[in-house]
Amino acid sequence: MPTTAFIGLGSMGRPMVRNLLKAGIAVRGFDVNPDALADLVAAGGTATGTAAEAFAGADVIVLMVVNAAQAETVLFADDAIAAAPADAIVCLMATCPPKQVADIAHRVVATGRRFVDSPVSGGVVGATAGSLTIMAAAPEATFEAARPVLEAMGSRTLLVGDTPGQGATVKTVNQLLCGVHIVVAAEALSLAERIGVDTARMLEIITETSAGSWMLRDRGPRMLESEPEVTSAVDIFVKDLGIVLEAGRETKAALPMTALAFQLFNATSGRGDGTADDSQVIRAFRALNGAA
Amino acid sequence: MPTTAFIGLGSMGRPMVRNLLKAGIAVRGFDVNPDALADLVAAGGTATGTAAEAFAGADVIVLMVVNAAQAETVLFADDAIAAAPADAIVCLMATCPPKQVADIAHRVVATGRRFVDSPVSGGVVGATAGSLTIMAAAPEATFEAARPVLEAMGSRTLLVGDTPGQGATVKTVNQLLCGVHIVVAAEALSLAERIGVDTARMLEIITETSAGSWMLRDRGPRMLESEPEVTSAVDIFVKDLGIVLEAGRETKAALPMTALAFQLFNATSGRGDGTADDSQVIRAFRALNGAA
Repeated sequence: MPTTAFIGLGSMGRPMVRNLLKAGIAVRGFDVNPDALADLVAAGGTATGTAAEAFAGADVIVLMVVNAAQAETVLFADDAIAAAPADAIVCLMATCPPKQVADIAHRVVATGRRFVDSPVSGGVVGATAGSLTIMAAAPEATFEAARPVLEAMGSRTLLVGDTPGQGATVKTVNQLLCGVHIVVAAEALSLAERIGVDTARMLEIITETSAGSWMLRDRGPRMLESEPEVTSAVDIFVKDLGIVLEAGRETKAALPMTALAFQLFNATSGRGDGTADDSQVIRAFRALNGAA
Repeated sequence: MPTTAFIGLGSMGRPMVRNLLKAGIAVRGFDVNPDALADLVAAGGTATGTAAEAFAGADVIVLMVVNAAQAETVLFADDAIAAAPADAIVCLMATCPPKQVADIAHRVVATGRRFVDSPVSGGVVGATAGSLTIMAAAPEATFEAARPVLEAMGSRTLLVGDTPGQGATVKTVNQLLCGVHIVVAAEALSLAERIGVDTARMLEIITETSAGSWMLRDRGPRMLESEPEVTSAVDIFVKDLGIVLEAGRETKAALPMTALAFQLFNATSGRGDGTADDSQVIRAFRALNGAA
């Protein structure tokens, strides 16, 4: 099995690493957080002091960092990538704007190394269960070489195109839909509260009609709770819809629905609820319209 | 089985009547369109010259008219309702704003007759298959009395509350979600076209992730066709999102996502595509952003 360097041991990265180790893949990991490194060692991985140290001897390099700027720093600051084997494959799995992914891919390929644009869908739940959907874009041979590592973390590993940036595009479109679906569910439930119906009963009904969405079924019930468990935070969508809007700006395509949904997540964060469950974007409607 | 008067023999009403007749329910029908009346007779129903004539001897009166104003005219112009038996039940199945439904219910009940707020979801496909979802609000005994007629037309006949207007509220919320989900699917696909990925392949993937919605799966593929079959027209959503916005206005609740989605359906209709399949709201994005 390919030795893997894993950079970014946060809420997604940690369970992804556990699934790699479980599949018998050796992991050399780096993160700026010492607790994350201690967890890695406890799980059976090797902690390193820098990204470059992790890259040494790694067949595959997985980046699960916060954004494209971090990915660039990890790979290119002090020419870290030079420490990796000459045919190493970089898998960028963080959510980043398509153009920035394409730019990073060009820089990696210019060093002779290979690149798989490979963002994921499924969140911490999917990362833990090893059931992520991985939306990969790379030349087919590169994808096939990285596949054993990717398949250890996801249950659907899909090649969406041969050009890096196309995976990020599918992920961008995915997040556009997810974010807007959450906001429209909040708008719908807040209207129902205002007019006055049994919202829990209503939710049972409309999740089974043509009004249904994955997000309505998952987030809808949590919108009816005042302090639900945090499965994914409001600020994640401030970030992700920001990436979607950046993709629209890069290609000069207007995204009016996304722009509006972003405003409501952003205002929710601004009122101090950035770390609340993303279902609580419904508070934006309650703030705007008054209590039900 | 209760004799039923059926007013409004349009694209929804005709197949609904066929299912009533199939269930052994006698139908006395009226519509201003003589072709619709001829169809009714051919299917085994009785055509009448006025709504009042249809009401005579009807245990249940079904209204599948275009809007609340038509329902009021049918029931109260020339005091037509007086022709119905003293304990007749009026089932208003058209999509109308909740407050107008409540007002009509009050006027019907003031005559001593009964009322079931009973809008439907499922469109012409569901009307034809007898698989409509019926979202009823009425006192329970009234609902039970009307149930055999409703169940002849739908596969899910649900009591959502005891107060007329609550069914219309659930239907309003349903249409809010349906309409916005179509527009956001269009925005997502038009962004993907702009950046350049295999949109059909992308659609396969994202309908199976947390980005999925009923509308994305149903309308998404038709958005990729240039002249798809018309399952439901753009103008239906101009009407239905208009009703949603009216419900927001009646209760003074802001509905920003719905307002924006309405604009895009409305502009699509304004450019001459009102009778196109509602998936073609994607043309609003193509018009706005230029061809992909």
